Amino acid sequence: MVNTHLFAPQRKHPLFALSMGDPAGIGPEIACKVLNKKPSFSDRVVVVGDYDVMERTAGRFGIPVHFNRITGMEDYRPGVANVLDCRAIDTSSFVIGKAQSSCGKASYTYITRSIDYALKGAVDGVITNPISKESLHAAGINYPGHTEIFAEQTGTERFSMLFLLRNVVVAHVTTHCSLRQALDLITVERIVSHIYLLHDALQRLGIASPRIAVSGLNPHAGENGLFGNEESECIVPAIKKVCLKGVDATGPYPPDTVFMRAFKGEFDGVVAMLHDHGFVALKSMDFEHGVNITIGLPIIRTSVGHGTAFDIAGQGKASPESLLAAFDAACRLYHNSRS
Amino acid sequence: MVNTHLFAPQRKHPLFALSMGDPAGIGPEIACKVLNKKPSFSDRVVVVGDYDVMERTAGRFGIPVHFNRITGMEDYRPGVANVLDCRAIDTSSFVIGKAQSSCGKASYTYITRSIDYALKGAVDGVITNPISKESLHAAGINYPGHTEIFAEQTGTERFSMLFLLRNVVVAHVTTHCSLRQALDLITVERIVSHIYLLHDALQRLGIASPRIAVSGLNPHAGENGLFGNEESECIVPAIKKVCLKGVDATGPYPPDTVFMRAFKGEFDGVVAMLHDHGFVALKSMDFEHGVNITIGLPIIRTSVGHGTAFDIAGQGKASPESLLAAFDAACRLYHNSRS
Repeated sequence: MVNTHLFAPQRKHPLFALSMGDPAGIGPEIACKVLNKKPSFSDRVVVVGDYDVMERTAGRFGIPVHFNRITGMEDYRPGVANVLDCRAIDTSSFVIGKAQSSCGKASYTYITRSIDYALKGAVDGVITNPISKESLHAAGINYPGHTEIFAEQTGTERFSMLFLLRNVVVAHVTTHCSLRQALDLITVERIVSHIYLLHDALQRLGIASPRIAVSGLNPHAGENGLFGNEESECIVPAIKKVCLKGVDATGPYPPDTVFMRAFKGEFDGVVAMLHDHGFVALKSMDFEHGVNITIGLPIIRTSVGHGTAFDIAGQGKASPESLLAAFDAACRLYHNSRS
Repeated sequence: MVNTHLFAPQRKHPLFALSMGDPAGIGPEIACKVLNKKPSFSDRVVVVGDYDVMERTAGRFGIPVHFNRITGMEDYRPGVANVLDCRAIDTSSFVIGKAQSSCGKASYTYITRSIDYALKGAVDGVITNPISKESLHAAGINYPGHTEIFAEQTGTERFSMLFLLRNVVVAHVTTHCSLRQALDLITVERIVSHIYLLHDALQRLGIASPRIAVSGLNPHAGENGLFGNEESECIVPAIKKVCLKGVDATGPYPPDTVFMRAFKGEFDGVVAMLHDHGFVALKSMDFEHGVNITIGLPIIRTSVGHGTAFDIAGQGKASPESLLAAFDAACRLYHNSRS
């Protein structure tokens, strides 16, 4: 359970920390754009980053947003664009559009400060803007990504990253390992655990009775045993197991049609066996609107689905759609976790 | 090389056989729709099927197309909708929307007659409408699909099925086998052979200098050896090999972004390692417009990318877009093979 009781109960609306992301990426730009366009965002989000970077970004792109610089959450004022100034980087000390150690160090500071505020209950969760793994490594901070920083700082061992795109949430039974290793990781227990995680997440997103599709592993979901037996040996038993507990899970469906069927409204969530079943589908469908959700942490955490986009940073053409979707998902998680 | 010299050289335009497909599926419906809407289609295509089924289908949906019933290619008349009547099925002997042996037998007849005409040079190639594997099997005709019938009847051993969607052609190094078997099939030789096949097909489709992207096998294309070594051991050497022969092939690219990049115009073709890299991307992008192309046969063969769609057969809502795209691809293959 998300420890919503830790969150300041006196607030009418949730308040989230938005970590500014790598200063050299598109994070500051999309934050300025959303703060300017969406009043409810300003009211429910505090940017945890560098005030000077935010100011300079708004100026560069002519975005008429006025920031309230604060140094602690106690200075937060509703109705304005609050920036919690970490003073982690000097605007003259980095180049936009490149991985560099100063930016890696600064973005790590924004994340850890944000998590800290969430754990203390000063905010109701964390929304993250993109960071650069290369910048982190250049700064000697060796995490594979955001999620592992969250897991370590919150003392969480069992967590999972889900991907939300429009009406569909996708869970991956295997992710960052070779295909040969992934095949060995496909077990009844692992599949069952991911079905439950997805079911729980969908309920927290406000879907009372989620319809979950379980994808196959092999082409045509094994074509009745002709193309592999993981379907009959692992996936079918896993589905039977969760169905006995009242979860509406069906499958295994052929990987090449299950995602399309979900996006057309047949399912609320899909359990994918492989990184490149789910992510090929998600990235082919619509890259801009995706949201990462980390489930299993004691705090709410959502993230934009894209990276730092160094190639277009500083040009003013970054789309804030994924950040808006990450904000919307955080609000849904907040409201349904409280009810 | 396609044996275009076999094709009747006196024709100004190509002439293709369109096998009608399973009578209980959407094949007859989409054929009527295209014959009615596209005059160049009527002029360049002879339906090889059952006249009564075509007549009844046009009547059922109020499609104002008038057929010229012929019994041999010598009766072909330009400017009208020719149906080569195989009299393979009685309209009263089958139910629309279901797999059944009578339809399997009839659809097999349409295919073999079409191939026969192409081999004789009476037509310049074959476009196929969807058949039902279940109907074929019910009729005791045991082929996995169209392609194997073409291979056997034309005496072809080395062939490959490519998938064309809008501006991109995808070749699959492995297709109908288990993932475990697919991993063992990933070899330098096999990848090289598929790059050449794709390169050849793209040139025949009219692209003089095709830009080919080679996808990785593992997540993130192996993340520099962290998630598997097939990229460094097989894919990179294969790319180097074909580049030495002047082929513009690059990669390996992460499977979850390479298709999107190709559809955005960066590449003309993608070599996918797995069935469910390519097909997840293709089916997520846009299912209706896809076309199958069999390369390696002595005749031109393209096919609609979808199946019989028994669930919507007889309802008048089938889209003819894939058939139009298959026709367009056949015309491109014809013109570029001749030049």
